[in-house]
Amino acid sequence: MPAIRAARDAAERAAAAADLIAALPLQQRAGLLRSLADSVKLHTQKLVSAGSNETGLTHARLETEARRTEVQLRMFADIVESGAFLDVMVDLPDPEAIPAARPDLRRMLVPIGPVAVFSASNFPLAFSVLGGDTASALAAGCPVVVKAHEGHPRLSALTAELASAVLPAGALSVVHGREAGPELVRDSRIRAVGFTGSTRGGRALFDMACARPDPIPFYGELGSLNPVIVTAAALVERGESLAHDFIASLTFSQGQLCTKPGVLFLPAGHGLETQLAEEADAVPPAPMLGQWIHEGYTAALTALTSHPDVRVLTGRSAAAATPGHDAVIPTLLSVSAKAVRSAPELLHECFGPAALIVEYESQEDLLATLPLVPASLTTTVHGREGTDDELARLVLTAVPAGRLLWNGWPTGVAVTQAMHHGGPWPATTSPLHTSVGGTAIARWLRPVVYQNMPDALLPPPLRSDNPLRVPRRLNGVVEQPAV
Amino acid sequence: MPAIRAARDAAERAAAAADLIAALPLQQRAGLLRSLADSVKLHTQKLVSAGSNETGLTHARLETEARRTEVQLRMFADIVESGAFLDVMVDLPDPEAIPAARPDLRRMLVPIGPVAVFSASNFPLAFSVLGGDTASALAAGCPVVVKAHEGHPRLSALTAELASAVLPAGALSVVHGREAGPELVRDSRIRAVGFTGSTRGGRALFDMACARPDPIPFYGELGSLNPVIVTAAALVERGESLAHDFIASLTFSQGQLCTKPGVLFLPAGHGLETQLAEEADAVPPAPMLGQWIHEGYTAALTALTSHPDVRVLTGRSAAAATPGHDAVIPTLLSVSAKAVRSAPELLHECFGPAALIVEYESQEDLLATLPLVPASLTTTVHGREGTDDELARLVLTAVPAGRLLWNGWPTGVAVTQAMHHGGPWPATTSPLHTSVGGTAIARWLRPVVYQNMPDALLPPPLRSDNPLRVPRRLNGVVEQPAV
Repeated sequence: MPAIRAARDAAERAAAAADLIAALPLQQRAGLLRSLADSVKLHTQKLVSAGSNETGLTHARLETEARRTEVQLRMFADIVESGAFLDVMVDLPDPEAIPAARPDLRRMLVPIGPVAVFSASNFPLAFSVLGGDTASALAAGCPVVVKAHEGHPRLSALTAELASAVLPAGALSVVHGREAGPELVRDSRIRAVGFTGSTRGGRALFDMACARPDPIPFYGELGSLNPVIVTAAALVERGESLAHDFIASLTFSQGQLCTKPGVLFLPAGHGLETQLAEEADAVPPAPMLGQWIHEGYTAALTALTSHPDVRVLTGRSAAAATPGHDAVIPTLLSVSAKAVRSAPELLHECFGPAALIVEYESQEDLLATLPLVPASLTTTVHGREGTDDELARLVLTAVPAGRLLWNGWPTGVAVTQAMHHGGPWPATTSPLHTSVGGTAIARWLRPVVYQNMPDALLPPPLRSDNPLRVPRRLNGVVEQPAV
Repeated sequence: MPAIRAARDAAERAAAAADLIAALPLQQRAGLLRSLADSVKLHTQKLVSAGSNETGLTHARLETEARRTEVQLRMFADIVESGAFLDVMVDLPDPEAIPAARPDLRRMLVPIGPVAVFSASNFPLAFSVLGGDTASALAAGCPVVVKAHEGHPRLSALTAELASAVLPAGALSVVHGREAGPELVRDSRIRAVGFTGSTRGGRALFDMACARPDPIPFYGELGSLNPVIVTAAALVERGESLAHDFIASLTFSQGQLCTKPGVLFLPAGHGLETQLAEEADAVPPAPMLGQWIHEGYTAALTALTSHPDVRVLTGRSAAAATPGHDAVIPTLLSVSAKAVRSAPELLHECFGPAALIVEYESQEDLLATLPLVPASLTTTVHGREGTDDELARLVLTAVPAGRLLWNGWPTGVAVTQAMHHGGPWPATTSPLHTSVGGTAIARWLRPVVYQNMPDALLPPPLRSDNPLRVPRRLNGVVEQPAV
């Protein structure tokens, strides 16, 4: 099996390079990330062409994604340079400490070791070979082995080629083929896994990571329904513009986003059916990322529409717009909140441009139904400030999510330090962690404390004179390093 | 099964109390922790008497442990009060952001929900009902269900009684009986688990947590060999005092500590055999924590001593000193590094006062053997500053551990914010986390980001005027709250 051999070889290269990558000075590590960003910028057109051919995504969409990829790499370069991610704490000796005298203790985070990254089908640049998982792992000082997605192998190879011109040997390898994935998760040299994809695929790999003789952390970003709740007051105030913006969010990238609003709660008798159907119908048919996505989408949609209480407002499949890529148009389904309570399996992700509109009769009806929505990446309330505050508080605690939005739309995840892109199961396998935002780096770091260690044996961030001037907490108080 | 019913009832109580506990203002949460500390202090003698009867540990040992328990609770009270543990980040809107305009994003950590804590046999106070796991989870705002250890049920009940006089209903429940443990790990209302105990028991529960329909974080602090490496230079300089201190560390609490130095690397021809054996023989026989510990210890020791290359320097079992508690005296075994390389299964934890002395012929011999030592909670080097720096660097990277010590002993884990008590598998199930030190609280918190949320709907730490004056990062820069 060449894929298995390739996975083993890549893990070996990563393990061999691990000490070197971990020891790269922070400035140099940041420099490599910026060189990667420069390379993505310089070769954007080549990357976009290759990606568009393979994925059916438009040039405009992929150009934005190339910018996102570049910005992510630069953000992690800044994070590395600041040194705050090392979370350094120094507790000086205290002979009077209770229950026993305290030694000199200096704690920091160190790289966890070689990381396997499973790239996403729907972000062939930003969550693929040089995407967020890779950027954050390299920033942490970990070598990376990327399992390329079968949806864009040539783009993956091209990106790997750009990276290899920049990075030290072993820092980043790319492997292809389905069999390579499980092999990486089971390889004893791999110390953590990042995954973006389906709940089913992610769960299978998560189970493998946990079942190892030596279990390792598995960070899976899986499916999400992303409920959006429109209050009665918001409906009265701006129902039409909400309907318009909803269709735009639903159909962006043909609904192939983990943050797509999959379920919309509207007050019964909302009167927006005609507008919603017309706006959905106005979206031109477009190809999906691949045949396998189309098949999964169709199967999930068929299960929903076959339920007797579900009405189809609009939607049908369309003929293939691009050879090999089945095209779709948006589909809108409608059901009462009461019916959902009898059939909670309707609250199920359809990865594509489909949404379920749930009509609720009253606040009680809404609040009785929301707890059936599985934990999500996002929960959104559209309400009227002041009027809806109490209801919004109840709604936002009813569905556990990693990101809570007011009067916005969950698609379009900002690249910035405070962003959190995660959530309790089934949104992810690890509720403490995020795959977007500055703290994504924390997934690849483990703490180590040095006890009574001479300065010469300490890593530079822990030395008494703080030569790198990293932020530290000294006896619990933030230390201001002299410049 | 009354134990299963009790576990379910306790999970229900915890779930019912979760919102209330999470919403307790930080000052009030800190106040509860301090009241618990006061209660432990006030009732120390009662707790120590009950604990000594059940565990065979001495009054002196348990008094120190009561102090540790109290200090831990007070440390977490301070941590809660400071608000730094919330890790608040505020990124203000930026219409110019790339690749898209940035909304207002405010991130903080929120309680993960009801936590199950498995208490330890060997710390019937400090890692039991009101121990470090409970203290950190309550500090995080999570209700706790403690699975009491069968080794000290009366002490557990007494501690629970003290706690119930202080805490709101549902904040802390204690359940007894073996069947209660798996039931808690599988209960859908439990959102995370803390465990201190054996590798076998911890692995079984970890597997259950991962196999749930909705997997949850499982933080298991398991076994550890804690290698101690003595260099040739240190041997020459202070061999006799090292031998003396080693026996003291090995036999403290009858070796029933997860940080016990289980393997000592000495240069071949060290000449300390007689002294080591004599000092070990001078330690009086003492009871172990219980019959089940004694059986496990004996079985592990028998496996080691039955190996043809292992020599017994000293040791034997002793008659029971206390009814029901088999007493033991220290056992020292010796083997060559070369033999260990042929039989790495000798590097196996014996939970009790036994250690394997591994004699190495040269630095090469030492460095070829160390990578066979399983990842540990601690790795210790005894060397001579200057002379041994290069060797020490190699040794400290050869065995991955959570705490690295220079010229000290791994037993006696300081209670302080920078402490880290963890390590890669098999030391723990979760290399990113710690069960001792300030960051133990991070195990029970998950991030949430609020997007464009009106101030009225934000939790107080995220509001624009920062009413609680918690430390925050504003656009990536530490904000100094006005006092």
